Amino acid sequence: MDALVCAPNNSLVRQSLHACEGKTATNGDGFGLAWYGDREEPGLFRDLRPAWSDENLRSLCGQVRSPLFFAHVRAATNTATTRANCHPFVCGRYAFMHNGQIGSYRKVRRKLEALLPDELFDQRAGTTDSELLFLLVLARMELGAMPGAAVGWVMHQTKRLMLEAGIAEAVRFTAILTDGQTVWAFRTSCDGHSPGLYLRERPGATIIASEPLDTLRDAWSMIANNSVTTVRRGLGAVTEPLVIDGHSWPVAA
Amino acid sequence: MDALVCAPNNSLVRQSLHACEGKTATNGDGFGLAWYGDREEPGLFRDLRPAWSDENLRSLCGQVRSPLFFAHVRAATNTATTRANCHPFVCGRYAFMHNGQIGSYRKVRRKLEALLPDELFDQRAGTTDSELLFLLVLARMELGAMPGAAVGWVMHQTKRLMLEAGIAEAVRFTAILTDGQTVWAFRTSCDGHSPGLYLRERPGATIIASEPLDTLRDAWSMIANNSVTTVRRGLGAVTEPLVIDGHSWPVAA
Amino acid sequence: MDALVCAPNNSLVRQSLHACEGKTATNGDGFGLAWYGDREEPGLFRDLRPAWSDENLRSLCGQVRSPLFFAHVRAATNTATTRANCHPFVCGRYAFMHNGQIGSYRKVRRKLEALLPDELFDQRAGTTDSELLFLLVLARMELGAMPGAAVGWVMHQTKRLMLEAGIAEAVRFTAILTDGQTVWAFRTSCDGHSPGLYLRERPGATIIASEPLDTLRDAWSMIANNSVTTVRRGLGAVTEPLVIDGHSWPVAA
Amino acid sequence: MDALVCAPNNSLVRQSLHACEGKTATNGDGFGLAWYGDREEPGLFRDLRPAWSDENLRSLCGQVRSPLFFAHVRAATNTATTRANCHPFVCGRYAFMHNGQIGSYRKVRRKLEALLPDELFDQRAGTTDSELLFLLVLARMELGAMPGAAVGWVMHQTKRLMLEAGIAEAVRFTAILTDGQTVWAFRTSCDGHSPGLYLRERPGATIIASEPLDTLRDAWSMIANNSVTTVRRGLGAVTEPLVIDGHSWPVAA
Repeated sequence: MDALVCAPNNSLVRQSLHACEGKTATNGDGFGLAWYGDREEPGLFRDLRPAWSDENLRSLCGQVRSPLFFAHVRAATNTATTRANCHPFVCGRYAFMHNGQIGSYRKVRRKLEALLPDELFDQRAGTTDSELLFLLVLARMELGAMPGAAVGWVMHQTKRLMLEAGIAEAVRFTAILTDGQTVWAFRTSCDGHSPGLYLRERPGATIIASEPLDTLRDAWSMIANNSVTTVRRGLGAVTEPLVIDGHSWPVAA
Repeated sequence: MDALVCAPNNSLVRQSLHACEGKTATNGDGFGLAWYGDREEPGLFRDLRPAWSDENLRSLCGQVRSPLFFAHVRAATNTATTRANCHPFVCGRYAFMHNGQIGSYRKVRRKLEALLPDELFDQRAGTTDSELLFLLVLARMELGAMPGAAVGWVMHQTKRLMLEAGIAEAVRFTAILTDGQTVWAFRTSCDGHSPGLYLRERPGATIIASEPLDTLRDAWSMIANNSVTTVRRGLGAVTEPLVIDGHSWPVAA
Repeated sequence: MDALVCAPNNSLVRQSLHACEGKTATNGDGFGLAWYGDREEPGLFRDLRPAWSDENLRSLCGQVRSPLFFAHVRAATNTATTRANCHPFVCGRYAFMHNGQIGSYRKVRRKLEALLPDELFDQRAGTTDSELLFLLVLARMELGAMPGAAVGWVMHQTKRLMLEAGIAEAVRFTAILTDGQTVWAFRTSCDGHSPGLYLRERPGATIIASEPLDTLRDAWSMIANNSVTTVRRGLGAVTEPLVIDGHSWPVAA
Repeated sequence: MDALVCAPNNSLVRQSLHACEGKTATNGDGFGLAWYGDREEPGLFRDLRPAWSDENLRSLCGQVRSPLFFAHVRAATNTATTRANCHPFVCGRYAFMHNGQIGSYRKVRRKLEALLPDELFDQRAGTTDSELLFLLVLARMELGAMPGAAVGWVMHQTKRLMLEAGIAEAVRFTAILTDGQTVWAFRTSCDGHSPGLYLRERPGATIIASEPLDTLRDAWSMIANNSVTTVRRGLGAVTEPLVIDGHSWPVAA
């Protein structure tokens, strides 16, 4: 994994200290790695330390080969610096990570958690909006929704509860989800300011990242706002619009 | 503080490695310290490390004088090892710590959390039953209940929800609460097996501990089961029965 | 790896909380894992937390397959609880771990460190006697000594410096070393009280452990005191006496 | 202490995330606090986490009053992120912290450590050049040197060993030392590029900091290069030149 996580010019480890595009330049509030191996469920390795100083992360990336993995560095936004609040989040064979946030999250957290079925509520280990959005999406998928439709439903419910609570701030959701076989990349927000998400397709490999990992800017394309991109093993990436409550975002608040 | 936390024969630091009476001999899943100084709100220092190896704890205890402080070493029971799950818990000027547990807590956690008012729900930083019981007691006190009555109400509600969920295991509650002026020590359980709590009154000092801190066994008296002991500054300790839903525990399940 | 580290009846994770045979029952001062994969140098994963509460350790063991790995739980003996002081230690393609200690280590540490060549002194990351003994053995091997002879030389020098410093306590050395291909297990001490080391040979696997990992006591044989056992891939274990300065230990102090 | 550590416009906690003047903008590799209370020896509180996310630091600063304390945030330069490598360093009643570094430190570390007497070598808990310089200064003071002369001697020896090792890089030493009564602030370097150090004298308080803590730029004066500033309780700060081997630095390399 270190060919992608540690080695590139603008690697994730480097981004922990100096991200170029993110809202926050320093992402020192922990990191995480989820990777798929021989089992259906992914491995998960998360720690509180800044990624730039963690020898375990470097050693693990140097040893493990994986056909599919997620890596993340965190800049906390008002929730605690704990392992359970670090991305990626894992539930069964699913892994998920998220950039963005629910504006004034504390005011709607409780009502959003109330939408979780008991089994998924029990899986909640941390306190972030990101983990909550992940579990809500899974809850909708368990009822039969496709990932894009599930995200659309969750965004709609989130915005509805935010409006009910008088929150004028936006919900922004740039995220990746996988079941270990297929990857879905989402980029949406009610105000049109979704954090960036870049795609690079190489022979034999597809890379999705919040910033290009190298200086070949032309090789990276920005994933469109309000869309879901599906990457199946051995097939190219397919991007479709994301439909939220019958409308495309941004909506007038 | 180290005259009590680090120095005695059976100090808390020593108990982290070899507790004599507790259900668990090793209490290595973090520790915590809450102390009152010049401000109304207490200081709080908690960490994940075993207390026996933490230099910060030793140094802090060696420097700080406090007329009233709580110290705790934790053995986790099915909840994560995080700072936010370490005792004591602090909310405003209140501090609290707890030995015991809610049997099959996961099955009633959600229903118990639903009893919290929004403001106190927002104060919930961790995932333990202990923190939840603390906030429920505070919620009842905010409605005007005295601490003993508040604990009685919370025990009654907890047992009621446990029975509704078909839980045969017990709820056990040996705990200390303070507002910075008065200390209330509780010892109750629905099956009569409350973890121990000892009291020692010396001229100018009252000590409450889960095990005697020294070998003067006669100087320590066990606090009675199903009681609340109130210690006011400069006054002796007063013990009264704890009334739970009109009855004293143990009750027939 | 979890078939050996986490799953057995008396697994290493369990031993972190309740070791049966060791000098210390609780081994909560960190843990470590070194494993060989596709590269010549091993992966290394060490953390300060007690092994029993570390989700990363469990997840990693659940994912990684390795034909050769070392795992260790630590009970600190007078040196700091840091990652760099956790076993195994890795240097180049070598990995090493150790039970035992140099009596009154502080009094001879400096003189022992002076025996290290500059390159290996630069590899010293922590402060333990164990890492120092590892590097001294490597230093001797770089001069052409076989592992058994290198250990013999290091034990002799250590005892000599201890005697010069007036130290009556013993040096005890139960240790395992590997270069990724061959494993050498050592058990020696100047007073005959070497910590235990057990061997189990199964078809296709050789296990060396400080305590039997399961209840099949007969399947495990204690490695003899003052010996070195060599395990080559695909070949059985061969035990030979360890010669220290022309004599076998124990020696009269 | 939080009036100085947490509250100001450009507080140390803020500098951990965005320092203005330092060589490194992010100082997220741990922090430390040494403070004097009722005892002769200071309290010491250090942790690995970035200062910006540590609740313990905030709580401690909110409770403790101290007439004299040191606080530091660290950006590691090639030595491990451990508590023992975080500033301040404490030895007996002395506390010390340092900005700057010994160029190509690894090449002279061993020779510099050889200058330490045994008792101070035993006090060495970490691996940084900063702690080593501190102990070397104390060693010289134990032989009767005044702090300024001790620093001069240590700088001279350091530069000498660097030259012998063929190191062209500089040694830079901006540091503060105290015995709990008097504070000495040093600023020197062989190339004239000493990290900055600012002094503010207010009625009843003297503040020394690597950056002004507030926007009153005129109230802060830069301590001169190649000088030692002595602050005695109740007396003003006195600055004198620092003499290194009969010369003032910068010297021709």
